[in-house]
Amino acid sequence: MLGDAYVEAQVMWTFFYAPNTCALASHIALEEAGAEYTLKRLDFSAGEQTKPEYLAINPKARVPALRTPRGILTETPAILAFIAQSFPKAALAPLDDFHAFAELQAFTAYLCSTVHVAHAHRTRGYRWADDPAAIEAMKAKVPQSVGACFDTIEHEMFKGPWVMGEAYTIADPYLFTISRWLEVDNVNLERIPRVADHRRRMRERRAVQKALADQGVT
Amino acid sequence: MLGDAYVEAQVMWTFFYAPNTCALASHIALEEAGAEYTLKRLDFSAGEQTKPEYLAINPKARVPALRTPRGILTETPAILAFIAQSFPKAALAPLDDFHAFAELQAFTAYLCSTVHVAHAHRTRGYRWADDPAAIEAMKAKVPQSVGACFDTIEHEMFKGPWVMGEAYTIADPYLFTISRWLEVDNVNLERIPRVADHRRRMRERRAVQKALADQGVT
Repeated sequence: MLGDAYVEAQVMWTFFYAPNTCALASHIALEEAGAEYTLKRLDFSAGEQTKPEYLAINPKARVPALRTPRGILTETPAILAFIAQSFPKAALAPLDDFHAFAELQAFTAYLCSTVHVAHAHRTRGYRWADDPAAIEAMKAKVPQSVGACFDTIEHEMFKGPWVMGEAYTIADPYLFTISRWLEVDNVNLERIPRVADHRRRMRERRAVQKALADQGVT
Repeated sequence: MLGDAYVEAQVMWTFFYAPNTCALASHIALEEAGAEYTLKRLDFSAGEQTKPEYLAINPKARVPALRTPRGILTETPAILAFIAQSFPKAALAPLDDFHAFAELQAFTAYLCSTVHVAHAHRTRGYRWADDPAAIEAMKAKVPQSVGACFDTIEHEMFKGPWVMGEAYTIADPYLFTISRWLEVDNVNLERIPRVADHRRRMRERRAVQKALADQGVT
């Protein structure tokens, strides 16, 4: 019932993103869910995420952010679960099975807290050190740290054919989004064939093609 | 109804933790929920988290992990939400309000992906760089990076009297757990009086006192 209420209300949703960020995951999920929403693109090269207009929306100066009639939602795992709960017919999460939902959330939490963080040391090392040599040292380790994360995903976590098994879930666009960065992170995809195959199959989905096209990225 | 089934099954839960880690958050939540569970303590100084016995439980070599009759759950935000959903009578999350649940999950996601990560650069810099000087440079910035996170929590996110407002939720033990590290992170609590007061009030709760005593920490 709550789900129906959200379907009615969500025509007023606005999704804030920047290209080539983790916001792509939620953007794809919105498309998979059949949501109606307005896109607002931020220009990170112009620092729009740190300007007062955007800080009033998200004081953390990050994307994604989803504005609804109820307020602002941030953080990819939270937005993904919200989309799944708001559109139960899209079956993007095992909503009636707490344990399976927690397994799914463990995957999205790992992506945000460990995998995305490892990747961020390539271009955002200034968050954690000031010394330019230290920032270079962080960049140098990204292939190893991101590679280790993806080894764990490939061998321990990925169930197949989708991340959580037979059912496509919100974990799939999130893994796809971060796996798009493997080349710039200098991780050889030949060592993670299941992840590479997942990335290829994701590109066949209409929702993925639509989100990429809307963001103007490939 | 699913909740009742889990209450029956959870006498077989086992919770894996190590003292002075983020596992304390889920441990407190288990106590708040009135769960029955067995504690398994890992000795990080002996490297127990990287031994085959534990890697069979959690190949990520981290705590917390919660073993249930259905399998293993990991990652603090996922375990916290699972505890809240499994014990609805404990009212540890707004389970029937997707938007409020997403706001709560945005808070726990911020703690795991940004605040805990900033803190981790004090003692686990080796995850992101090999150069000893870089690791020292990371340590040096922790007071600034963790301090900035807590400024955001103090001024932008903390609603009061509890994290999410009038209702005590799973966000409260998680914030308490990370705010216990403020002294070692060299962040002055005088600049974050609401967080400091929250930490003091958390210590008055029976569940917090029980979890701290069980872990042998203060």
